[in-house]
Amino acid sequence: MMRSKLLSLVPCATGPFRTMSTTTKLTTVEVNDKTGIATLTMNRPPVNGLNLDLLRDLRQSIAEIEGNKSRGLILTSSNPTIFSAGLDIMEMYKPDKERVRAFWTALQDAWLALYGSSVPTAAAINGHSPAGGCLLATSCEYRVMLPKFTIGLNETKLGIVAPMWFMSSFLSVLPRREAERALNQGRMFTTDEALQIGLVDEAAGTKEEALEKCAQFIGTFAKVNPIARALTKQQFRAAELEQLESERAQDLEKFLFFINQPAVQKGLGIYLESLKKKAKN
Amino acid sequence: MMRSKLLSLVPCATGPFRTMSTTTKLTTVEVNDKTGIATLTMNRPPVNGLNLDLLRDLRQSIAEIEGNKSRGLILTSSNPTIFSAGLDIMEMYKPDKERVRAFWTALQDAWLALYGSSVPTAAAINGHSPAGGCLLATSCEYRVMLPKFTIGLNETKLGIVAPMWFMSSFLSVLPRREAERALNQGRMFTTDEALQIGLVDEAAGTKEEALEKCAQFIGTFAKVNPIARALTKQQFRAAELEQLESERAQDLEKFLFFINQPAVQKGLGIYLESLKKKAKN
Amino acid sequence: MMRSKLLSLVPCATGPFRTMSTTTKLTTVEVNDKTGIATLTMNRPPVNGLNLDLLRDLRQSIAEIEGNKSRGLILTSSNPTIFSAGLDIMEMYKPDKERVRAFWTALQDAWLALYGSSVPTAAAINGHSPAGGCLLATSCEYRVMLPKFTIGLNETKLGIVAPMWFMSSFLSVLPRREAERALNQGRMFTTDEALQIGLVDEAAGTKEEALEKCAQFIGTFAKVNPIARALTKQQFRAAELEQLESERAQDLEKFLFFINQPAVQKGLGIYLESLKKKAKN
Repeated sequence: MMRSKLLSLVPCATGPFRTMSTTTKLTTVEVNDKTGIATLTMNRPPVNGLNLDLLRDLRQSIAEIEGNKSRGLILTSSNPTIFSAGLDIMEMYKPDKERVRAFWTALQDAWLALYGSSVPTAAAINGHSPAGGCLLATSCEYRVMLPKFTIGLNETKLGIVAPMWFMSSFLSVLPRREAERALNQGRMFTTDEALQIGLVDEAAGTKEEALEKCAQFIGTFAKVNPIARALTKQQFRAAELEQLESERAQDLEKFLFFINQPAVQKGLGIYLESLKKKAKN
Repeated sequence: MMRSKLLSLVPCATGPFRTMSTTTKLTTVEVNDKTGIATLTMNRPPVNGLNLDLLRDLRQSIAEIEGNKSRGLILTSSNPTIFSAGLDIMEMYKPDKERVRAFWTALQDAWLALYGSSVPTAAAINGHSPAGGCLLATSCEYRVMLPKFTIGLNETKLGIVAPMWFMSSFLSVLPRREAERALNQGRMFTTDEALQIGLVDEAAGTKEEALEKCAQFIGTFAKVNPIARALTKQQFRAAELEQLESERAQDLEKFLFFINQPAVQKGLGIYLESLKKKAKN
Repeated sequence: MMRSKLLSLVPCATGPFRTMSTTTKLTTVEVNDKTGIATLTMNRPPVNGLNLDLLRDLRQSIAEIEGNKSRGLILTSSNPTIFSAGLDIMEMYKPDKERVRAFWTALQDAWLALYGSSVPTAAAINGHSPAGGCLLATSCEYRVMLPKFTIGLNETKLGIVAPMWFMSSFLSVLPRREAERALNQGRMFTTDEALQIGLVDEAAGTKEEALEKCAQFIGTFAKVNPIARALTKQQFRAAELEQLESERAQDLEKFLFFINQPAVQKGLGIYLESLKKKAKN
């Protein structure tokens, strides 16, 4: 992995950046022409639920940012109160056989692309960030969060099991002791709690301030060789990346086996009903 | 492991719990009919030395608690000043060939059962907890300790080497840097020191208060799906559990090789003599 | 590994120690006859650059200390402002094919000897300690640092990639989250910052005070069985030691491949020019 990446990496351009803005259906990429930093915005109303399409767009946008000589990637949401509500349950409830396989594969791909990204990554968490939303945030290298929101891997409260690579992202941020307890409890942390435990690095009053603080973090790499940085990061994260890469098929089968348990389907159905009732009120 | 466990797991009953009390020779299991939490009490005078019989009883009691739909397990001691003094040296000094094999195997079994337990576990540490006592406490998910006692893996002070899975339990609680130093020093921590470094989670003035705080920790899982919780915990701990499971035979041989070194036998003999003298004074 | 080491280990002598002082070309070993602690001083002007000869001397001195029944090893520098400036770039710039292989192999050997040393180790960091200097310091079990110096793995700033085993030493000291960020940023920490984050354990006003504090740390093992201690430490560090031992050849090839990239050679050339200009001013 290392070698092929090394050969394909291109050093940062030092000249002025072109302003680029690309819109796929569900994500937007905007590159700041002064800083050279790309902002990747998730835009799938109502809650940035991670379905097959959003996951594929995410991966494509990450690849685009890797290719366009950006100095860094900031992940954020167009929704003013939700960063991402996590995996779209509609992809898992009474799923189509082929589509659910494509869905999980797209999730694996998006994680491998983000967690292993060669450019510096930061999340401007401008809304609630449960489950898969927390996965995306903890796969970045830095997190800035707005007040009065919550973040966490709350899968056990939903009756599902976060796979090992969700845990890997979590463990790259939190001490093992704290990570295990939070995972088992399915605990959601407020912004203040997340800051105190280290689940996020900074708080910010507004989205603009959050984006600015993310840009400052990315700025700490200004005098760092981008190839050496990318290889160092990927080597540091190699064990987790290689574990999923080598166990992709088993990981997919494990997910399919679990999701097809009658008790799990029943639980998802009850949860969906509760969401519908909430929506009516 | 995951799949077979999944299929055999039974969700918590939501109705009232039967009050059950089982006494084997050296342990007691008592289930609180209001909370559904089982208290597992070690009761082998004078110091809860972990010999073959206590270890077998411990494992059997853990299995019973797993099977009786308890909401959680609290491990404690009937002794007012000693949680457990650790491995019974009489099992290792001039040992019978067959018995010492059974002893170590029972220790492996007890650890696999407790560290990998599907129910929430907490230790009410109501007395000193050196070596094997600390192993049991750190194999639980939460620790509450009474004041003026000590806890730690002090094997190096006794001239023996804590096996890798003792280290795994320790590392699931302490940061790596702190764990290594304490292990090499064979350091015993006072209650205050243990609290400060994170080796225990809370202090309590009395055993009743300790049991209550353990029950409160177990209560944090009230709204968590018990199957998802169990699978999450076991996945989080899988690497350590699988390591011992796959290396049981080598681990046993390593222990036997070590324990049969003349220098080690001599050291144990001297230590036993010093204990006898203490007992006389 | 464990067994052969066990059989070859010799317990600490309890009688008075002989005063020994051995000088190889680039290191000095001095054993305090009261404490039995060996001080290993790097002495390669002007900056203790780690070249083939210094690395071979380091390894030989560590072996000597292991063999002479010392109670511990304190690593320090004869230079009043530089602990070690890290790998000697002259060994990597336009290198001789055979010598550069011997150089990297000597670095592997020195790390395996120091990180896996059976005696307690401490670093009295009496000057700047970048890159390879930080590797040596973090391979010891304890660190005391003088004020107003800097320490860190700043390889990404030099355009190179610290190998996995550099990361292992770093991770044996820092939490994962902090280690990754610092590695990616190539961050140098001041003494105060290093103390706060845990990269060093204590600060000291003078070299004498630093040596004294290192000796006090080594003194914490006075009542610990030295064989049990050595086996415990080596077992705790076994995964990292075994990883390099089993991948030595690939690690060497990876280094040679990297160092021979035209872009890397060009970067080293520019860096050397800048050093020459600095030296003139």
